[in-house]
Amino acid sequence: MSENKKPLILITNDDGIYAKGINELIEGVRSLGEIVVIAPDGARSGMSSAITSLHPLRVNLIKEEKDLTLYSCTGTPVDCVKLGINEILDRKPDLVLSGINHGSNAAICVIYSGTIGAALEGCIFGIPSVGISLTDLSANADFSEAVKFGKLVAEKVLSEGLPQGICLNLNVPAIPQVNGLKICSQTKGYWAKEFQLAKDPSGKTVYWLTGEFLNEDPKNEHNDEWALSQGYASLVPLKIDMTAHSFLEKIKSWENS
Amino acid sequence: MSENKKPLILITNDDGIYAKGINELIEGVRSLGEIVVIAPDGARSGMSSAITSLHPLRVNLIKEEKDLTLYSCTGTPVDCVKLGINEILDRKPDLVLSGINHGSNAAICVIYSGTIGAALEGCIFGIPSVGISLTDLSANADFSEAVKFGKLVAEKVLSEGLPQGICLNLNVPAIPQVNGLKICSQTKGYWAKEFQLAKDPSGKTVYWLTGEFLNEDPKNEHNDEWALSQGYASLVPLKIDMTAHSFLEKIKSWENS
Repeated sequence: MSENKKPLILITNDDGIYAKGINELIEGVRSLGEIVVIAPDGARSGMSSAITSLHPLRVNLIKEEKDLTLYSCTGTPVDCVKLGINEILDRKPDLVLSGINHGSNAAICVIYSGTIGAALEGCIFGIPSVGISLTDLSANADFSEAVKFGKLVAEKVLSEGLPQGICLNLNVPAIPQVNGLKICSQTKGYWAKEFQLAKDPSGKTVYWLTGEFLNEDPKNEHNDEWALSQGYASLVPLKIDMTAHSFLEKIKSWENS
Repeated sequence: MSENKKPLILITNDDGIYAKGINELIEGVRSLGEIVVIAPDGARSGMSSAITSLHPLRVNLIKEEKDLTLYSCTGTPVDCVKLGINEILDRKPDLVLSGINHGSNAAICVIYSGTIGAALEGCIFGIPSVGISLTDLSANADFSEAVKFGKLVAEKVLSEGLPQGICLNLNVPAIPQVNGLKICSQTKGYWAKEFQLAKDPSGKTVYWLTGEFLNEDPKNEHNDEWALSQGYASLVPLKIDMTAHSFLEKIKSWENS
């Protein structure tokens, strides 16, 4: 790989290396550079930025052809990015793409999403990074519009770069023809009615996580949920600095407590 | 519990319900209200805001006495907060405390930390929330200063509240006498040299996650790592809105691509 002058693109996801979404993304962006895929060996949805420290990780080479190498990994999406950058790749990637996720990662889902966790991780290493999601959970979803917008944003990022500490969250609505791209803010809201109770075979109560998203700001036309509801793909720039800078002064007096 | 007029405090952590840190915190803040603990049944370090959706969760009552109830849970720290608010508690908590973590959660660790994941989750539900960590990983660390500052911040938050969408990240240095409290920003930096390679019994390579933190802004006196290095407890307000608002205008033209 070391002599390759093409951009190096590291691809991962949280649905696992055999999911339709990541494979459609790989085909969609192959022409943009040398592709190395390091993705979980199975589903890691909802893994956020989780890392694995209590047991060791394994990496398996799945396929190797010209400008395309695929590895599976036993870890989380963030583990995949860390292993790629620290151990597998022989140069720093020019771009990290995570997805295409089966299901939306708009609004507060950025906090829980393994897809976004991986994009944040690329960003922490100073690499322009994009999380890409389609608002359709089904295994055989139609990813054609999501691939189109994913490729468009990947090309933009490869040519213009991104500032240090900022990555992108792209969500594409699951409709036959998307209206265009909207630059958005993260919608305020939370998940409610989150658990379905059931009994295990011995009669003990167990809790299945489920729920529905409650949009606390549904009429705000700057938000990603609004853009998606209007048939647009939403692009939200995310910061890895979580500091609430505007609030620092307000609690400065606590230093004297 | 329903007639209780005392503040209701939900406590969780990511080291598990039998860790020293959470038990010292419980004793330290017992006088502040009615305490309900819902914590993982074992170590969940580095779980970030991960949620469990592929298998069901279980909750076990461990202890019940006046104004103190303890449950263990098979899930992640965020699962514990969700189960508490959705299923276990009969009123909305006035405060969520997460910790005291065995080990620092300053700087970029906010992204990976299960302790902070739980605090962010309380915040998503509109509850004032604080993650508390001591910069000592050892199982029998001395938590007395961390309890002192944790209680101080808990009292401040109970009396003054926190704005919607903001929670607090308190880190306390592992020294016999802490100099005081500093209001800080999240230090810029990342983890490097992250993997230790080993062989499994059959001779195959495995990767253990380890590494060291690289501070990219070591001289900045506003940062949490600096405060900790000077013997202060650091308090960073964190936002759940991850939008890079200042960058929205810069990519607005991408809408016309």
